[in-house]
Amino acid sequence: MKTKGPVVGIVMGSKSDLNVMKTASTMLQQFGIESEMRVISAHRTPDTASQYAKDASGRGLKVIIAGAGAAAHLAGAMAANTTLPVIGIPLASGSLNGLDALYATVQMPTGVPVATVAIDGSANAALLAVQMLAISDKELAAKLAEHKEALKAKAFEADEEVRNQGK
Amino acid sequence: MKTKGPVVGIVMGSKSDLNVMKTASTMLQQFGIESEMRVISAHRTPDTASQYAKDASGRGLKVIIAGAGAAAHLAGAMAANTTLPVIGIPLASGSLNGLDALYATVQMPTGVPVATVAIDGSANAALLAVQMLAISDKELAAKLAEHKEALKAKAFEADEEVRNQGK
Amino acid sequence: MKTKGPVVGIVMGSKSDLNVMKTASTMLQQFGIESEMRVISAHRTPDTASQYAKDASGRGLKVIIAGAGAAAHLAGAMAANTTLPVIGIPLASGSLNGLDALYATVQMPTGVPVATVAIDGSANAALLAVQMLAISDKELAAKLAEHKEALKAKAFEADEEVRNQGK
Amino acid sequence: MKTKGPVVGIVMGSKSDLNVMKTASTMLQQFGIESEMRVISAHRTPDTASQYAKDASGRGLKVIIAGAGAAAHLAGAMAANTTLPVIGIPLASGSLNGLDALYATVQMPTGVPVATVAIDGSANAALLAVQMLAISDKELAAKLAEHKEALKAKAFEADEEVRNQGK
Amino acid sequence: MKTKGPVVGIVMGSKSDLNVMKTASTMLQQFGIESEMRVISAHRTPDTASQYAKDASGRGLKVIIAGAGAAAHLAGAMAANTTLPVIGIPLASGSLNGLDALYATVQMPTGVPVATVAIDGSANAALLAVQMLAISDKELAAKLAEHKEALKAKAFEADEEVRNQGK
Amino acid sequence: MKTKGPVVGIVMGSKSDLNVMKTASTMLQQFGIESEMRVISAHRTPDTASQYAKDASGRGLKVIIAGAGAAAHLAGAMAANTTLPVIGIPLASGSLNGLDALYATVQMPTGVPVATVAIDGSANAALLAVQMLAISDKELAAKLAEHKEALKAKAFEADEEVRNQGK
Amino acid sequence: MKTKGPVVGIVMGSKSDLNVMKTASTMLQQFGIESEMRVISAHRTPDTASQYAKDASGRGLKVIIAGAGAAAHLAGAMAANTTLPVIGIPLASGSLNGLDALYATVQMPTGVPVATVAIDGSANAALLAVQMLAISDKELAAKLAEHKEALKAKAFEADEEVRNQGK
Amino acid sequence: MKTKGPVVGIVMGSKSDLNVMKTASTMLQQFGIESEMRVISAHRTPDTASQYAKDASGRGLKVIIAGAGAAAHLAGAMAANTTLPVIGIPLASGSLNGLDALYATVQMPTGVPVATVAIDGSANAALLAVQMLAISDKELAAKLAEHKEALKAKAFEADEEVRNQGK
Repeated sequence: MKTKGPVVGIVMGSKSDLNVMKTASTMLQQFGIESEMRVISAHRTPDTASQYAKDASGRGLKVIIAGAGAAAHLAGAMAANTTLPVIGIPLASGSLNGLDALYATVQMPTGVPVATVAIDGSANAALLAVQMLAISDKELAAKLAEHKEALKAKAFEADEEVRNQGK
Repeated sequence: MKTKGPVVGIVMGSKSDLNVMKTASTMLQQFGIESEMRVISAHRTPDTASQYAKDASGRGLKVIIAGAGAAAHLAGAMAANTTLPVIGIPLASGSLNGLDALYATVQMPTGVPVATVAIDGSANAALLAVQMLAISDKELAAKLAEHKEALKAKAFEADEEVRNQGK
Repeated sequence: MKTKGPVVGIVMGSKSDLNVMKTASTMLQQFGIESEMRVISAHRTPDTASQYAKDASGRGLKVIIAGAGAAAHLAGAMAANTTLPVIGIPLASGSLNGLDALYATVQMPTGVPVATVAIDGSANAALLAVQMLAISDKELAAKLAEHKEALKAKAFEADEEVRNQGK
Repeated sequence: MKTKGPVVGIVMGSKSDLNVMKTASTMLQQFGIESEMRVISAHRTPDTASQYAKDASGRGLKVIIAGAGAAAHLAGAMAANTTLPVIGIPLASGSLNGLDALYATVQMPTGVPVATVAIDGSANAALLAVQMLAISDKELAAKLAEHKEALKAKAFEADEEVRNQGK
Repeated sequence: MKTKGPVVGIVMGSKSDLNVMKTASTMLQQFGIESEMRVISAHRTPDTASQYAKDASGRGLKVIIAGAGAAAHLAGAMAANTTLPVIGIPLASGSLNGLDALYATVQMPTGVPVATVAIDGSANAALLAVQMLAISDKELAAKLAEHKEALKAKAFEADEEVRNQGK
Repeated sequence: MKTKGPVVGIVMGSKSDLNVMKTASTMLQQFGIESEMRVISAHRTPDTASQYAKDASGRGLKVIIAGAGAAAHLAGAMAANTTLPVIGIPLASGSLNGLDALYATVQMPTGVPVATVAIDGSANAALLAVQMLAISDKELAAKLAEHKEALKAKAFEADEEVRNQGK
Repeated sequence: MKTKGPVVGIVMGSKSDLNVMKTASTMLQQFGIESEMRVISAHRTPDTASQYAKDASGRGLKVIIAGAGAAAHLAGAMAANTTLPVIGIPLASGSLNGLDALYATVQMPTGVPVATVAIDGSANAALLAVQMLAISDKELAAKLAEHKEALKAKAFEADEEVRNQGK
Repeated sequence: MKTKGPVVGIVMGSKSDLNVMKTASTMLQQFGIESEMRVISAHRTPDTASQYAKDASGRGLKVIIAGAGAAAHLAGAMAANTTLPVIGIPLASGSLNGLDALYATVQMPTGVPVATVAIDGSANAALLAVQMLAISDKELAAKLAEHKEALKAKAFEADEEVRNQGK
């Protein structure tokens, strides 16, 4: 599958989040899905955040992935300004170690959902985006099935290793 | 939009969850999306859970919404057996009041994402499903935009009321 | 002290927050400070939220008080769009009972502070606003001192009552 | 005591759990109880998980010990598919440091118990399995009594050391 | 199955725990297992607690179920004084609503396991005891299988009801 | 034992705490220990708080019991101003239900201890005060032993009742 | 802007807090605001704490910033003794990692507000102080606007970097 | 002050706790109070624990300090078997980092108080013991006053240092 421009927008609140967030980009590439990465802050560049979400659909984006830590408002700010599905990644940082980000990301009010994944769960955020895109893309759905098989195969290998070790 | 059979599966761990979960069904109906409701338990009817998820795509389902409380494994059990997107609703119940269900639903391992919404967030789960379906359905996307406008309008009304009250 | 228009903006995410939030308005009135109450949602009416904060200083507001529950982004959305001091009130609601709102309100990133008060602490939010205004208003500072004395007097009365009861 | 095949199945969600989990195997060996170690994932290899639990009793297993982290569903998946006692070990990992695993393991619904031990408590999981087996095995019960005495003796030694140090 | 004296001891820290704890007794009766109920406090009657656990095996008990709230030490006090398996039920009470009891019951040190079930999980405590006894009792194992089937059947009924309701 | 003036000071932050706090007074009376009850607030009447603690020893007080909720600083404020032992009772109130008060009371810095009892544990606070006084008062120590026996007797009665009920 | 003596008092409970707290001082300097730093403990030097707060306004201070860890009473002790706005910084330390300090700082009773910022949020505390002072100081308000623009510019740069990296 | 044998018993659940616990011993020495240190486990050597507490008063002990981690029952086991005041130190260890020990130590049932200090608060436990002993020992009370002054002096020094640094 080849896409003609990014279909998934990956936004993060700070450059320091890049280390965790680029896993999402890499995972999407494995599925042949083009994405773009942006540093956009709900608090430092709120107009950019709002505009980015408003323009997303028109620019061809289908899904937005947003990662932020602490009082993590970025995914919510995206969801407030688009009807595209928004996937939120609570990022671990500071004293509360991501629990604050989890609450701030998942506890959204009625009308404005954010599809929240695990703390620092950037790989799963990407997979979830692929699953959403695969709803109307059989080729992609097939790739997801393959990926699931590969995970299974790897788990079987690990099982084999541990079983032999036990002997 | 008319669908020829359910496209969203709504599963819950226990009949007592129906009160919260039927909000998802009602919300989907507002968007003209047919859904089905099932009581399936990851712990009491695990084979049914596994089979339901495996058959889901073949039966025409596009998204699964799963709600469960406490050691809430239902959404994870769905996600383990399908590549369709699975939306998890942690349900409040018992002494930990949904915090256990939140952790058990959102903290999924790499490879098997669950799109988690707020505790008892069944309306948002449905909206998220609609957003996913709308990726490839412009009519539905338009309805989402209308729904967003309606929410806004209602908020403006509330604002008006409170402003006048303040006078 | 008489003001010629509202100097404190009191915003809340939902009409259902009015019950708690109007305490702030009443408290400000006791100090002769005019305020306005608005229902503005960071998630349902994000442009209004942004615009409100941007216009605030120009319209003569000196302080903004924002109350919201759950993934409470309202105070942060205000702070992102103004350099006026923003006071955040985490509101108790839902299963996490305000803990989510507390984290989402207080854990703001560097550069965008929110002055957070206790969960449901609307009276204190108002007092804090008065304290800020009193920095450059001796009359107001005097009223605050009187108010502090009155609290003390009331505490002494309670003490008296309990002491006699103990006899 | 000699057994003719594994009587305790030790399953873990990932190879990275081996370090903690092998303590269970070693402890069982001390009691002359044969065990097997397997990497089985409730989420990546769910059919294997289900089948393992279903076959367990027929294969001669008497107790299953399951360790998993985060949204730890493995012990629950075992318990859903067997009537053998299942011992769950919540494993510490990620940002929530095992609290998520504890809730996901212990808060099981009525009808499907999991005997939960402390976070990373693999030694105790093994001891609990031995206690269960010792219900009908006097020799094993005697070994448990010896083990308890040995623990006591070691504690007395530590006491002696510290007392002398205090002098 | 008929037993000639109690094989399961059910102990609770206070008479006020009876309401929750008697569910364990009733459940055991369903399986034809005789139990005894005792109010024994690790803190108010510590010698009785110690002696009860020491005598348990000699008196024919095979499993001890202990329920306590707050700083719930009862299960641990049992486990300290016997090598029989001890099942701990954290009971919800007071401000921390059972979280204190959960931690105090499950986080036992190496060497002294307590098989912990969910907060207020008395039915599951009983089922776990039955599972332990069934390791060496085929008749009982068969009853457990039946009970599991009955749970499944009840879940299927609930499913049927909800499915029809959805139509 | 008769005392010639209060030897225990019972202070509380607000009159609304009286309901819980008077249990401490009643318990002390049972031991023939005179106490006084005061409403003193670390935040509303800080000078009184400071002075009360400073004068305590000179006025014949031997122990101070302080109960407060939320950001519970009262016990700490006492301890900062006296070398008498200060017993802190975290009171349950508001959204955090006493957890805030527990942390604010128990986590005192090195040099300024507060002897903290359970949330709302006013009876135990009184008993702890009695234990402290009994260090140098054999008559009181004997009463404590009697009280312990009475608790035990009551527990035995409860045990008897439950045992018979089980038959 | 030049001030003729400190207008912001920065107090901390212990010298070990200096590392975090001096960020506040530096930030204020950037805005041309003179501050003073003091080690004052609500528990070890309570009279100094009380006196400092009482004298603050007379000495020309306009805002007090107080940072403390654990049972963090310092901000509350300041607020109890002045009507100046008090900004509280919960400091991370010890086993609870700042959660205790957060609760002890933010959950203040009605009548005595503390403007709480994030755990270890000393930069934001300073900015909040500047915002308060800027209410009546247009030059300062302009500097705040510049600072906000600078933050934005820095975020744009980070965005640019990450976007190019993605290419 | 010279004592003729230990008056404070310091018990800890494990030798690994010695590092934290010996601070209590050292602090008591500073006040001329003899103490003894023991490793006694509520779970591994329960009879010793029970006997130690029962004999304590007869052996001349006046106060018991007990430190334990995780499901920290040691202080409670002491309190169950003596009417001497028992001071509990929750020790940080394992995944829950002392929160489990805090709950298990402080949330004692009515009738059996434990005077709980901060997590790892061994110095304060000792000071609290000194305060208790000083109730009937004026010399000791004077030493406490001196110690408090010394703390104050040290805090003033730190203040001086930081003030000069600020210049």
